Amino acid sequence: MAHINLQNDLPGIRGLMAYRPDTAKPLNALAEALLRSDENTLTRGERELIGAYVSYRNNCFFCQHVHGALAGHYLQCDIQTIEEIKQDFTAADISEKMKALLQIAGSVQQSGQMVTLAQIAEARVRGATDREIHDTVLIAAAFCMFNRYVDGLATWAPTDLQFYVNRAPQRAAEGYLATDLRT
Amino acid sequence: MAHINLQNDLPGIRGLMAYRPDTAKPLNALAEALLRSDENTLTRGERELIGAYVSYRNNCFFCQHVHGALAGHYLQCDIQTIEEIKQDFTAADISEKMKALLQIAGSVQQSGQMVTLAQIAEARVRGATDREIHDTVLIAAAFCMFNRYVDGLATWAPTDLQFYVNRAPQRAAEGYLATDLRT
Repeated sequence: MAHINLQNDLPGIRGLMAYRPDTAKPLNALAEALLRSDENTLTRGERELIGAYVSYRNNCFFCQHVHGALAGHYLQCDIQTIEEIKQDFTAADISEKMKALLQIAGSVQQSGQMVTLAQIAEARVRGATDREIHDTVLIAAAFCMFNRYVDGLATWAPTDLQFYVNRAPQRAAEGYLATDLRT
Repeated sequence: MAHINLQNDLPGIRGLMAYRPDTAKPLNALAEALLRSDENTLTRGERELIGAYVSYRNNCFFCQHVHGALAGHYLQCDIQTIEEIKQDFTAADISEKMKALLQIAGSVQQSGQMVTLAQIAEARVRGATDREIHDTVLIAAAFCMFNRYVDGLATWAPTDLQFYVNRAPQRAAEGYLATDLRT
């Protein structure tokens, strides 16, 4: 049971957004701009993967499975593959650029000060642009917020992983701006 | 020097916002809704204090001094007093409700899972409403994002604390929505 009375039975961040639409609006707008905008050289799948990885490191069940399922949807791979990437991306079949960006995201998850010059240099060598490094840091930072919001108020989350897989195509089609309209 | 070329010399998050206006817009809208909206039973000073405290715990120089100066401006106290509150709020001359909310904010700074039922119960005993608990958690979570964004990209910050004190009245008057317009 959540720490406060949300006056709805929606899971995870959706329950919080329905409870407080004034803050839901900019939160959804941020997710849309960061994760879904077409004006980005990182694919939607790559951006969702960064969010899923940071959520995994923050041990946020709801977020890691929502965004893991979305990453799987966009990258056209099953959730077992996404699980393996979250657990050890260095061994995964992803680009060297993505590995360098996930390294940066992992540092941001701990603290902004943990990002090193060597990590930035490695990302550049692997072809990452300034804008891609910027977006990686902001996506990782944003999930440090979303994860704390979801868990800090002890929201509930479906335990059946298929729930997240089933919902991913609809969320991918509708985007994040539709969230507060539907709830 | 920042990790990426921001193409401007603005300090802290302002340089990042000028670099990427698409994400600046929802970030500023979130700050405005959370920290400045009049529809809130926590005062602006109390909300800025939560942000300053979390930024202090995250060791984010720019954010802790921007929002510490704003808290001082609203609460009509000097920055030395704000420093003392950040370092030990339990001994400070603030309400028991604020102390209970800062305890929750301190847990959120570490992880959402660190918030305890006892902390929530204590906040309620001290008069905190569900909405105040919600906003405390989201403010603390949001600053975990802002701090990581600012430090993860190694932005620069003025070292003279008077800079932050001098700018606080203008920021208080203009609010956060004006930020991206001015830069």
